Formats: sequence, structure tokens, C-alpha cells
Amino acid sequence: MIKEIIDKKRLGEDLSKEELSEIFNGYLNGKVKDYQMSSLLMAICLEGMNYDEIVNLTDIFLKSGEQLHYEDEFGTMCDKHSTGGIGDKTTLVIVPIVASLGIPVIKMSGKGLGYTGGTIDKLESIPGYRTDLTDKEIEEGIKKVGAVMTGQTKDIAPMDKMIYALRDATATVSSIPLIAVSIMSKKLALGASKILLDVKYGSGALVGTKEEAEGLAILMKKIGESYGREVRYILSDMNVPLGRNIGNSLEVVEALNVLSGKEEGKFKDLCIELASNMISMVKKINVEDAKKLAEDAITSGKALNKFYEIVKNQGGDITKLSVSANRYEYKSYREGTIENIDALGIGKLSLSLGAGRESKEDKIDYTVGIVLNKLVGDKVNVGDTLMTLYIHNNNFKIDSNIFEIQ
Amino acid sequence: MIKEIIDKKRLGEDLSKEELSEIFNGYLNGKVKDYQMSSLLMAICLEGMNYDEIVNLTDIFLKSGEQLHYEDEFGTMCDKHSTGGIGDKTTLVIVPIVASLGIPVIKMSGKGLGYTGGTIDKLESIPGYRTDLTDKEIEEGIKKVGAVMTGQTKDIAPMDKMIYALRDATATVSSIPLIAVSIMSKKLALGASKILLDVKYGSGALVGTKEEAEGLAILMKKIGESYGREVRYILSDMNVPLGRNIGNSLEVVEALNVLSGKEEGKFKDLCIELASNMISMVKKINVEDAKKLAEDAITSGKALNKFYEIVKNQGGDITKLSVSANRYEYKSYREGTIENIDALGIGKLSLSLGAGRESKEDKIDYTVGIVLNKLVGDKVNVGDTLMTLYIHNNNFKIDSNIFEIQ
Repeated sequence: MIKEIIDKKRLGEDLSKEELSEIFNGYLNGKVKDYQMSSLLMAICLEGMNYDEIVNLTDIFLKSGEQLHYEDEFGTMCDKHSTGGIGDKTTLVIVPIVASLGIPVIKMSGKGLGYTGGTIDKLESIPGYRTDLTDKEIEEGIKKVGAVMTGQTKDIAPMDKMIYALRDATATVSSIPLIAVSIMSKKLALGASKILLDVKYGSGALVGTKEEAEGLAILMKKIGESYGREVRYILSDMNVPLGRNIGNSLEVVEALNVLSGKEEGKFKDLCIELASNMISMVKKINVEDAKKLAEDAITSGKALNKFYEIVKNQGGDITKLSVSANRYEYKSYREGTIENIDALGIGKLSLSLGAGRESKEDKIDYTVGIVLNKLVGDKVNVGDTLMTLYIHNNNFKIDSNIFEIQ
Repeated sequence: MIKEIIDKKRLGEDLSKEELSEIFNGYLNGKVKDYQMSSLLMAICLEGMNYDEIVNLTDIFLKSGEQLHYEDEFGTMCDKHSTGGIGDKTTLVIVPIVASLGIPVIKMSGKGLGYTGGTIDKLESIPGYRTDLTDKEIEEGIKKVGAVMTGQTKDIAPMDKMIYALRDATATVSSIPLIAVSIMSKKLALGASKILLDVKYGSGALVGTKEEAEGLAILMKKIGESYGREVRYILSDMNVPLGRNIGNSLEVVEALNVLSGKEEGKFKDLCIELASNMISMVKKINVEDAKKLAEDAITSGKALNKFYEIVKNQGGDITKLSVSANRYEYKSYREGTIENIDALGIGKLSLSLGAGRESKEDKIDYTVGIVLNKLVGDKVNVGDTLMTLYIHNNNFKIDSNIFEIQ
């Protein structure tokens, strides 16, 4: 009985695979109600799950939909997953780098729910860009340009889609076991034999501390390995926004800046580290050698060219990318050095500008966002512009604690 | 923002009255969804609430509906509330006793959700008995026969009705703060200046231990007193079913047996204790003197007569009360003394016979149930009938651990 299963978890007991299947598959087919599932999810948030429960639930999620086998046709592939954060547009940089080295990449992403858009939203800010490729179009895209960046085809772990939407609406996102199940069920279903995880920690991330991020990463690696996949992970800091630009079109602009060699710094370094690990796993070479290949892809212009090819193949016209002409410059009220830029504060500001969505139905304004004119470590004088907001309304509030200046 | 309020409770923080009002009143008017509320309820179950939160939430529940003022017309009244249990038909005995002594009683009860029916279900097992009296009919009933036993008029703490249904479906019933809020908001709204609480503990009750029951009782007393009400409580054992009969018509039969002096024992003793405390509070006399009045009401036949008057006034025909003719006798497999009869086991059996309801939509079969032929302390031989099931189908399972025989 469903109530008894929820009650068991409320009491901190472990659920068997049969019990997990009864309630989760029951939810998928409509027998279990939203309000029962959200109550169980909150109990899981607060009482946790053991490793067997996590692996069993991953399997239930995975088997709720189709499992893809693109490697049968295209050979070894590497998938990358980032746990997300403010200003994270790494996918837009990494995929062209890796693909420009002859490694086929099928990158399927979800829509963002949160302070900023997801990868799909960022791609859709390019006029004409289609993120709803069919299976056939995905195969054609790989044959033609070596990579696609598209939305999930609808049958990939449909249970995760349902559960994620519910978690998002019920403040049950922050559960390490549920995060691991959500990510790994999708990654396993997508079929790549190599998986790279970019697990973030800090104020703008799903988990607060490096230790929690490492716990989550080790758990996901273990789940992946139990399915025979090679899994590596990188832990990255999300106390500070990633890069300079936050907001959909603005993030595409920044990705172009990195791909064309115009921007250096932490964001670019993370992109190179991620791309090198993907290259290293697929080509079976060490990370240092892979890093050289990745850097070369940028300096030679091959990666930028690959980005244009991918965009064009999916119908996008990069020349039509636009940002709001209405800008607001936020100036420094004091002199000193920037010690911190609060990622969560920037995220909330981005949401209030219209660059993210609070609920599934919200429409994103692709052209709004934030450009950080100063980064951590920069010296500033009174009156210097700290950030530029690209806006379409004046309903935003700037928290003066976003920039910590000493 | 609703999600932030849920998240605060998930993190174990206290909610302000404004936050509680935003989410609970938002739920009442449909802005907050079932699945968000159930997630908050589970977080409250696991993280608790402090006294201020409990009093604030009680006030929000109370003010979600009408507050009655029958004492303005009829003088001091005493309301009784039992936290419920298996075989609890005390209301059917107490109300006639108290009313037969000239004390007006308006007893409003809810429908049962659980293993056995609630008081309203038990009353409705009497053919013709109406539990949907209007405000006018309640007043007329008091003037005519001195007591009514009816359902809640719809505007009493409507928030509690909504929340209780959700708690029941989501395994979030077992929360001391939520139980206290639910009970006290209704009792306060009904307007009696004296309140008697029968708080049960044990396998068949909402709380397991006597200590938890006392904690709940003290909390409810404190809430009541903060509204200027006199509150007393009794802690009673619900490890073993209350009385001999479980099931709706069968419980009416047992109430009649007690009222007519045919049945003695623990169930009758509890009824006398509860009735005496009600009489003592309203008449401002000590409990011992009140006890004599209560016993007299039974031996004189006045209480039984009052029961018939109340039933007749509400349209019921007690001569038409019926129980299933289809019976199954469960025999003892061994010789010894009955050490325990598991209330929860009996409750589940009762539910499987059709005497309770799992969801709001379930129909109750009034004529089925269980009669315990042997009680705790009785000696039994192999083949003696331990209990008789009144049944309409053969879909029941008897757990052989219900009777512990040593």
C-alpha cells in the first residue's frame, strides 16, 4: 500500500526494489498522486537512501524509458554532465572542441528551471536554432558535422522528467541520492560508455560544500561503474558565477569569446579541463596530451568553426543573436579589491531580469542578463562599473552584498 | 515565495506567522498546490514545529472558518475529543449520560478515515439517522432532547478538513504538532468553554507511547488555555481494542449494552471516567461526585432513554439496526491465557472486512465487523472461539499474531 511505503521512509527505514517500483512506477502510470510522491520525496530528502536503494531507483528511472545505443554506429563516445550553476555555459565550448578533434558528440540537455536558463535555453537564444531534433536528424547531424546539441528525445527516462518537475516545485531538489538518481539514470540511458561529471559546490550550486560535491560525485561514479561505464569527475567552485556573462544570449557571446581565443581565465580553464578529460577517455591518451589537443583546437580556429557548423546544421543563424539595447550600469560605492561575487545573488538578480524561469510555464527573455565588468581579485575605485545589466523592465532589485569589496 | 517557505522547514528552521499564513491560506484558496503542501507537511513531520508555530497555525486553522457561540444561548458546555482508536465508541455512551443530567451537549464529529469508521459512520449505521443537521436543527435538537450528535457544519475549520485529507493520503498523520493543531482548531471553533481530551497511545493509536500522548495532551491543554478555555485530559491505552465490538453497527450494539448496564469492564470504566470529568467541569463539582451521577444515569435507565431520544430526534430507527448474518468464528489453536490482543492487527482486519475506509471515496459496510469473544486475561482452550467476524466477503486475512496466548 502506497501510504505504508511513504510511512516506512518517514520512519527512516529502507525501501525494497519492489516498494520503490510500486510507488515510482505507480506515479508514472498515474496511480500514485503528485501529493503522495512529493511527500515521499521530502521524506527521502530528510531521511536519505542507502546505496542499494539508490541503485535500484536509478534502474527504475532508467527503465522507465528508452535506452540509446549510438555507439553501435558511431563508436566510443563521451557524455558530459554538469550539475549546473550560475553562468555555466561550458557545454557550448566543450562540444565544439571535442568534435573538432574527430570525436562524435551527441549532447542532449534539459531546459533550465532556476535562476538562469539551461543549455537548451542558451542554444534557443540563437534565432532559428532547433533543439528538437528527431532520432534521424541526430544521426544525420553526426554524419554531417560530427556533433549535435539538442533536447532530450522524449523517451529518455520520462520518470526523471516527471519527478524533477515535482522536486523543483516542492523544495526537494537538494537531496544527494535524488540528484544522483536523476543524473545517472539519464546518462546511462543516453548510452555513452564514457561519462564525465562536472560536480559543482557553493552558494550557486545544488550542494554547498566541496565534501558534499565529492560525496555526490563518488556515488555517481559508483553507479556508473556498476553499469560498466568509465566515469570521471571534476569538482568545481560555484560560490562565484562562472565566467563574465549570465543570461542566455550573453552566455552564447561569452562561449564565442572563449572559442575565438579572446577570453582567458577560470571559465576557459574549466572548459579545457573538461574537454581534455573527455578527449583522454575516448582517445585513451593521458590528460596532458589531451589538453594540448584542446588548446590547439582553439588557437587553430577549428573549435570556433565547428561551433558555427553545429549551429548552422541545426538551423541557427548566429548573425542574428541579440541582446537587449537597454542597459543599466551598476557602479562601485567604494574603493578596494573584489573579494567575492555571490553566485546565488547574481542568480536571483538574473531571474528577476527574466533570464530564468520559476515554473515550467514561464517564458524566458533570451536577451536580458548580466555582464560582470569586474571579477574576483580586480581592484576597483568608487564609481567604476561593477556589472552591466541588460534589461527589459525595471523590476529588479540589486542586493548590495553581491559584491564583497575590501 | 512558497518554495522558499518549504525549503526553510526542510532545513529545520522556524516559520513566522506570515509565512505559515502565506502557505496555508494559499492552499485554502488554491494558489498553493496539493503537492507543495504535502511536501511541507512531511517536512513538518520530520523537523517539527515550536510552540509559537503551533499556536500560530492553530489560529490560522481556526480563523479559516466560522466560530460557533452556542454557549450564549445554552450556557456552559463541555466538548470531548478522542484521538481515536480501534473500537472507540465512547461518544455514543458519554453524550447520553451527560445530557441525561440536564447538561446540553452538541457533539460534532468527523467521518473516519482509517481502519474503522468514525463516530459519524457509527451513527449512520442506524437506519434513518441524519448526521447533516443544519444550524437551526441543532438548536431545535438541544431545546427538544438536550443533545445532538451530528457532523461538522461545513464552515468549521475548513482548512483542517483539507489538510487532514491530504495528511491521510500522504502518511503525514503522525506529527504531534499537526495533530494538536487539527484537534484544537476545531475544538476552539466549536465554542465550548470546557474541553475534555481523551488522548490514546499504543499500537492502535496515533501515538505509540504514553509519554508521547502526554506531550500531545499538555500541548493541546496549553493551546486551549491560551484561548481562555478549561481543558482536562485523560491518557488511555490503545494497545488493545476498546471494548468487545469493532465495526459500525456492532459498536452501536455495544454502546447500547453499556447504556443498559449489560456490559461492564474497561470500556465502560473509560466512559464513566470521561463523562464524570465533563459533568465535573460544567457543574463545578468534584470528579467523585460526578462519577456517582454518571453511574446513576445508567442504573436508572435515564442515559439509555436519552440515547433513544437523541436517535429518534435525528430520524434514526434503532429497531432497524442490522449486522451481517454471515459469520466466521476464529478458534484458538492453543491453550493458555490471552496476554494481548493487537489493536492494530484488529484494525487492519476490520478494514479488510469493509468496516473502514482507505480513501475518502470508499464506501463503508456498516454491518460487518468483529466481536471479541475473549478479552485480555481470559483463559482459553484449544477450539474456543476467540473472535467472531461478521462478513460479506471472504477477502480477509487473519494475522495469527493478533491474539497473544501464553
